[in-house]
Amino acid sequence: MPDASLTPFFAPTGVAVVGASARPESVGYALLRNLLFGGAGSNDRAAGFQGPVYAVNPKGGEILGHAVHASLATIDGPLDLVLIAVPGRFVPDLVDACADKGVRHVIVISAGFAEIGPEGKALQDAMLARAAARGVRLIGPNCLGIMRGVGGLNASFGAGAAPRGHIGLLSQSGALITGLVSYAERERFGLSTAVSLGAKADIDDEEIVDWLADDPETRVITLYAESFTRPRAVLEALKRASARKPVVAIKGGASDAGAKAASSHTGALTGSNAAYQAAFAQAGVLYAGDIGELMNWSRALSTQPPAPGSRLAIVTNAGGPGVLSADAASRHGLTLATLSDATLAALNEVLPSVWSHNNPVDVIGDATPERYRDALNILGRAPEVDGIVVIMTVQAMTAPLETARAIAEAHAEPSWEKPLLASFLGLVGTEVGTYLDERGVPEMNLPEEAISAMGALARRGAWLARPEPPVVPVPRHPAPDHERVRDCIARARAAGQTNLDLGLATALLGAAGLRYNRSETATDEDDAVRLAGDIGFPVVLKVISPDVLHKSDVGGVVLDVVDADGVRAACASIRERVGRGVPGARINGFTVEEQVKGTEIIVGVSRDPDFGPLLMVGMGGVFVEVYKDVSFGLVPLTRADAHRMIGEIRAQPLLDGARGRPVLDRGELVEVLMRISELVASFGDIAELDVNPLVLTQTGLVAIDARVILAADDAEGTR
Amino acid sequence: MPDASLTPFFAPTGVAVVGASARPESVGYALLRNLLFGGAGSNDRAAGFQGPVYAVNPKGGEILGHAVHASLATIDGPLDLVLIAVPGRFVPDLVDACADKGVRHVIVISAGFAEIGPEGKALQDAMLARAAARGVRLIGPNCLGIMRGVGGLNASFGAGAAPRGHIGLLSQSGALITGLVSYAERERFGLSTAVSLGAKADIDDEEIVDWLADDPETRVITLYAESFTRPRAVLEALKRASARKPVVAIKGGASDAGAKAASSHTGALTGSNAAYQAAFAQAGVLYAGDIGELMNWSRALSTQPPAPGSRLAIVTNAGGPGVLSADAASRHGLTLATLSDATLAALNEVLPSVWSHNNPVDVIGDATPERYRDALNILGRAPEVDGIVVIMTVQAMTAPLETARAIAEAHAEPSWEKPLLASFLGLVGTEVGTYLDERGVPEMNLPEEAISAMGALARRGAWLARPEPPVVPVPRHPAPDHERVRDCIARARAAGQTNLDLGLATALLGAAGLRYNRSETATDEDDAVRLAGDIGFPVVLKVISPDVLHKSDVGGVVLDVVDADGVRAACASIRERVGRGVPGARINGFTVEEQVKGTEIIVGVSRDPDFGPLLMVGMGGVFVEVYKDVSFGLVPLTRADAHRMIGEIRAQPLLDGARGRPVLDRGELVEVLMRISELVASFGDIAELDVNPLVLTQTGLVAIDARVILAADDAEGTR
Repeated sequence: MPDASLTPFFAPTGVAVVGASARPESVGYALLRNLLFGGAGSNDRAAGFQGPVYAVNPKGGEILGHAVHASLATIDGPLDLVLIAVPGRFVPDLVDACADKGVRHVIVISAGFAEIGPEGKALQDAMLARAAARGVRLIGPNCLGIMRGVGGLNASFGAGAAPRGHIGLLSQSGALITGLVSYAERERFGLSTAVSLGAKADIDDEEIVDWLADDPETRVITLYAESFTRPRAVLEALKRASARKPVVAIKGGASDAGAKAASSHTGALTGSNAAYQAAFAQAGVLYAGDIGELMNWSRALSTQPPAPGSRLAIVTNAGGPGVLSADAASRHGLTLATLSDATLAALNEVLPSVWSHNNPVDVIGDATPERYRDALNILGRAPEVDGIVVIMTVQAMTAPLETARAIAEAHAEPSWEKPLLASFLGLVGTEVGTYLDERGVPEMNLPEEAISAMGALARRGAWLARPEPPVVPVPRHPAPDHERVRDCIARARAAGQTNLDLGLATALLGAAGLRYNRSETATDEDDAVRLAGDIGFPVVLKVISPDVLHKSDVGGVVLDVVDADGVRAACASIRERVGRGVPGARINGFTVEEQVKGTEIIVGVSRDPDFGPLLMVGMGGVFVEVYKDVSFGLVPLTRADAHRMIGEIRAQPLLDGARGRPVLDRGELVEVLMRISELVASFGDIAELDVNPLVLTQTGLVAIDARVILAADDAEGTR
Repeated sequence: MPDASLTPFFAPTGVAVVGASARPESVGYALLRNLLFGGAGSNDRAAGFQGPVYAVNPKGGEILGHAVHASLATIDGPLDLVLIAVPGRFVPDLVDACADKGVRHVIVISAGFAEIGPEGKALQDAMLARAAARGVRLIGPNCLGIMRGVGGLNASFGAGAAPRGHIGLLSQSGALITGLVSYAERERFGLSTAVSLGAKADIDDEEIVDWLADDPETRVITLYAESFTRPRAVLEALKRASARKPVVAIKGGASDAGAKAASSHTGALTGSNAAYQAAFAQAGVLYAGDIGELMNWSRALSTQPPAPGSRLAIVTNAGGPGVLSADAASRHGLTLATLSDATLAALNEVLPSVWSHNNPVDVIGDATPERYRDALNILGRAPEVDGIVVIMTVQAMTAPLETARAIAEAHAEPSWEKPLLASFLGLVGTEVGTYLDERGVPEMNLPEEAISAMGALARRGAWLARPEPPVVPVPRHPAPDHERVRDCIARARAAGQTNLDLGLATALLGAAGLRYNRSETATDEDDAVRLAGDIGFPVVLKVISPDVLHKSDVGGVVLDVVDADGVRAACASIRERVGRGVPGARINGFTVEEQVKGTEIIVGVSRDPDFGPLLMVGMGGVFVEVYKDVSFGLVPLTRADAHRMIGEIRAQPLLDGARGRPVLDRGELVEVLMRISELVASFGDIAELDVNPLVLTQTGLVAIDARVILAADDAEGTR
């Protein structure tokens, strides 16, 4: 739940800097200057924090024309936030001093704690113990601080403050915040909040995410993460947040090289990327690939409604950029809207005859502002269009600012409902671009960036509209029986097995509700026909004879029996051939076996060090190794998660029956994944698990081989 | 060959605008204004073309304070370039007027030619006929014009001119040029030349590419293409160019959606992307994915040497951006250099103890300019580092301009040889970023953009250093015999086949030098052992008997015979089982067949409408359809092309023997591809061809099935 008690970090009544310094190159100086004037190069108190600011330093004196208090105790006036920028060894006592003063919110900028080793760890523990005892909440240590648009709070040592806006930024890297502040100034977008949590000794990501989710100034939460202290708690907070507003995240250390850089940077274990990807997907968090995407998506999501679908219209005065944007659309999951006859007719009315008569709507190089406005008015009302990207390049006859005005006018129509993004190639941050940004139409540097951001708006729309998939009955699979699972585990433990033998692994997964291939015994032809019908075709028929050793050698096995007539023919053939091969052999009946032939799928569970049980599904056999065509989900799955995972498999044609293969019933695989998810969620000592292959046959999914590994330590037991 | 006669287009002695106009919204006005003053908003004649400019309009008078000539005839003074911006119907006569005046270089800005239909096409033909008769060369019609940094020539109707630099831009979209001019101003880079060819009625891409390749002002050629008129001629020009300087290209219409947009835009058939990709790869052209990559790569390539390898060092004062850059490195084919002990020791000398001690070299948030300079000096000399990206974010204690100076100092050292790129997040185009750009270190907006550009520098380096692969003898394959191929085609034609039957197709590909699975006849056990050794194991043994109809049914076939003992055992087993199954059967010997089991590869040839024969190689079977794990090359291939194609297959582990599979001898597959390339290059009436599968066995590549389709029209015959 959102913790209102964090609010003084973002909207304090008064702020003190302990460790304020007169040395311009010091952190203590930068903190005070930023609080007073908002950033470097400003002398304007109105640009700073609009409440009392206190400098504290035992040396006293004056800094930046501001009287210095020798200690917190001498401060007289509203005060509920203290920034600490003194050597670490003084911090525990300062926590007490804050509490004495009634201050419960402290940002520890100082470094020199757990990251330097055991000594620092002891200091950090001491600091935390004091804070806990006195009801003080800490951000940091070793952090940049906080910025907040409302109230002009720059409680950080960054060089400048972000323009005020609606992006709430939470970054594990303080330096990324300072970089993004420069970038925001340059590209003209604003932040509601920027938070650097540093070492996260006390307050952690999940609390800030909850607070930002609750913050009316924040319309999108933008997250840079390298690792989480309590990954599951963050996941839950992200789920809560994304139900209320969009969340965009980027994970540092996503590559092996990046992970190495991340470890050396934070000293924290960087979680595996697959688990983070799954976590973000399950929480509805949009996963950005680089800084550009992170911020372009955030800009779009903080100003535009989600796109109700993926049908994009492009309005452009520039052919090449229009073509390249159309190319980009398919890379970002968008399709070009097919314009209706009504829309085309309306466009014909307002555009010159040489317009493209197609989407992209090329309004021609010499497009007037009116042409843009008219085209947008028509496309804004067109039901076949879910979102619009408008492109302009400066040509001799174009009037960029007037065009921006015309676009803003169309967008300001009360009936306007669609997401609209702009790119005036090369004009980002200029008067023209800024004009649009200030009127709620993000203007991006390059057209493909706007397309990418529209893709994010469409994915947000799809997430909000995601259906709740139904429970599908899977009659061919046994009902889960967790008592029997418990029994299998007990037998494995009793036998000293951690890697279960095939019999036990099969029994365990069967008890969890997975279907294995069936085999029945028929006494005669009629019985075989009946059993084959029960089992489902195709079946394999095998002779039952005490006189036959090698069934295949004497024609005692028939594969690919596809119907009742086939069963009778197979029985006859077996009788004839066996009788010929082993004269006088007694034939006591036939084994009727489900013939398992089909597409190999793999399902597995591993334990992620951060997030715990991580379920994988994908194409089995050679596919899994070479094409790594697999998808991940964190346990416990919802049915929607399971559908998402199956949908992420690239080889959809193989699941849809390509080359005469069996067609996958997605609902059945969803139920299989749900059962495995329930299994590992219920039995904490199942460390790893593989069903490989799970064969997609004409009669559905059949497990053939399985591996189950128990945790070496039995301590956890079963829940 | 570079055509020096194009030079007046880029460095004219004097320029006339026919169709000069006083109406500020007209093209004729913009052309004159740009020639005189360089662009909109300028009144500075020094910013315009530094030679005589003439306005021509039958109305006479004065425009922009400039006397107007009633016709070209009255011009007195140097003149060798004419821009025409009058309705198309006047243009043919104007071509004559230019020739009369001795002008051989004309840019036709006007539209209204072939793109409007038959009438326009007739006008275009008339214009071309006059030009050819009088020795006049034309650029256009329907184009933006030309810009040239040297001499201040803006012979276009764009709003502004590009800053002067070293990127030579050739764009099928004039609007993209105008957009990139804005972008260049904003991001601070320069163009040597920008050329819009419009409808390419006369002068075409290949001539401009050749001219830019020869132009000392141009250090990189940057190409936006939707389609080429003479694709093969452009390909040859690109090859010539990329041998001399880097070439970067982007293809509009690369997606289906984009291609649709491109067709409606240009009226030209957009070539298939696979063929363009192959063409660019074979020409050593770097293929950019979007406008950002196109220009970032061009900036890097126009100022930096190619990277001799892929080992990247990152210097940063910002942890998060460093981590994200490391993540980006692997996406762009770079590895993080492992710093040597000597380098680490040297860095320890100059950096504070808390530096990352690793690559990325984190010089810490409060990094001084000296720290950057010292770190760069060390990494600049480190032999384990091939290229460096330097990142800075503005923090309270950083001095951005001084840091830029320090970086420029390190880069200016006479010993400096490596590529160096910078990103000061959010400072592109500001004083700081510009400082670096002006000193030859491109400063890019986002760190990942610099990483992407470094990837391009590494690929350029790899291209220049590419080895010439040797010819590998392939003794198991027959020698190509094109006489026999000719014979096969003649037999197919005689039989009225365009889709060759399997026997003919097999014969044809065998004659082209492909190996099919071998089959020999052995009279007895000893003979079978000998033949099996010749053929290579594993082999299949089959009974030869006039009395056996269904060999398999009576045990007359043995698979998987792996050695000489196995041959004897198999023969014995066959004798025993056949004797039992068909008492009295005569056994005349054994067929010894090469057992073809292994990894399925597909090789095919199709005809691209632009580039002609396009060879494909990739994983066969289900792979080709689902994962489309194939690669393309234009015929004729070089061995280096063939190696590139094989290297682009993603399933390398399957070719390297994963799961006990046979290991591919790349050299053998190269020779197979060369033979197919030679086949289709030599026989123009082979329209399509498939070798599917080409099986990778333990003894090499064996073709199993083949399809050959002849062109329906026999006109072309064989060369």
